[in-house]
Amino acid sequence: MVDKKSHQIFYVILVEPKNSGNIGAVARAMMNFDIKKLYLVNPCELDNVCYTRAMHATNILDTAKTFSCFEDAVKNLDYLVATSSIESKTDKRHLRNPVLLEDFAKKVFDVKGKIGLVFGREDYGLYNEEIATCDIMLKIPTSESYPSLNLSHAVTIVLYSIYLRRTYIPKRRRHMALLEKKKLNEFFGQLLDDIKYPPHKKEHTKIMFKRIMGRAMQSKWEYHTLMGVLSRTLEKIKRRQGKK
Amino acid sequence: MVDKKSHQIFYVILVEPKNSGNIGAVARAMMNFDIKKLYLVNPCELDNVCYTRAMHATNILDTAKTFSCFEDAVKNLDYLVATSSIESKTDKRHLRNPVLLEDFAKKVFDVKGKIGLVFGREDYGLYNEEIATCDIMLKIPTSESYPSLNLSHAVTIVLYSIYLRRTYIPKRRRHMALLEKKKLNEFFGQLLDDIKYPPHKKEHTKIMFKRIMGRAMQSKWEYHTLMGVLSRTLEKIKRRQGKK
Repeated sequence: MVDKKSHQIFYVILVEPKNSGNIGAVARAMMNFDIKKLYLVNPCELDNVCYTRAMHATNILDTAKTFSCFEDAVKNLDYLVATSSIESKTDKRHLRNPVLLEDFAKKVFDVKGKIGLVFGREDYGLYNEEIATCDIMLKIPTSESYPSLNLSHAVTIVLYSIYLRRTYIPKRRRHMALLEKKKLNEFFGQLLDDIKYPPHKKEHTKIMFKRIMGRAMQSKWEYHTLMGVLSRTLEKIKRRQGKK
Repeated sequence: MVDKKSHQIFYVILVEPKNSGNIGAVARAMMNFDIKKLYLVNPCELDNVCYTRAMHATNILDTAKTFSCFEDAVKNLDYLVATSSIESKTDKRHLRNPVLLEDFAKKVFDVKGKIGLVFGREDYGLYNEEIATCDIMLKIPTSESYPSLNLSHAVTIVLYSIYLRRTYIPKRRRHMALLEKKKLNEFFGQLLDDIKYPPHKKEHTKIMFKRIMGRAMQSKWEYHTLMGVLSRTLEKIKRRQGKK
């Protein structure tokens, strides 16, 4: 699913899938919704079961890229979306603070560049470090009594929701590139340092900022304006410290 | 999924499923979306593969009802919904004249009684006589180049769409109160003043900030944390100016 006007490309990233049938079923779902790029992090073998389940989507399996670690798989992508059907009720809540799939699907077309949809292990999902790397965390609404979706079902629901918005609903576009996003987050981190923000809160607050920005999916213009405000602020504080 | 107010009960009806794994996967998806009643028309054997794929939804398999023909399965249901991802381009088109899943999901709650969601064979879908028996024909939007969904994926998408409308759309969790939103915007305006932001850009930048925050739909907790960062920043700058 590449939109030439927006240069928006979706990638499905499966992290350590253990069941080869699931991988095949994911490939089929991808082709059903016009998404071609599959990244596999440390997957099981793509055996006959996998190819049988893929049906007419074997080409997606043949062209899938395999990586030995998560960091390598995502390092060239612009916008990362973690997925889960389970809402954490622990202290990790904030890290996972999710966006509803429907709200995401309405806004995703504002983002340009390479968008990675990240799906975790069948048994454990994504680790916290992996989730922290992502720009937003998606929640797929499911029953509270049995929230755990089959992997290919989770992928299917997400791809369908995106396809639906893409195909049937007109859209505007916004875009923030990877490099700019990193810089904005760095500036915010710098601000926290400069204002002597309580160290034990720092990591949480940085992730929160990243999440807010991730949800807002701002444009280049918005990014540059925000950067301008932040850099002026940092300068002002610096000058004060120089004058001490 | 029984709604006491509307006395609405959903039934999933699989017509001549040939792959036992699909039946198990359907059972799991049903439990994920709080639907319990499974009707099977002339199914393959519910073997170990089927039970393994069902995961925690084996009870749905144990209580599934089996029928030898389609007419028997549906005769006591009030409203029948045929499903397909394929639009016929032949003379049967009129018979199949479909309703989009999204439009159906918005309106299905107006229907009371026993609602049967009918899914056809993996290889052939539903026969024309079966479609003719149904009250409406649903179309799940899919790629034109490969429209054919896996059976359990089709069920998953339909059940998710219904679940979403039923459960989630009315109660969005995240919101920021009007007063808090105003305060955050005021603080940001104050920051622009304090850093001597170019006056002619000020109004635009304030509106931009408001829009970003509006899109991000942040929680009360996020609001308080951002306010904390902003007020510390303002304080830091003020102290400098006091010392001038």
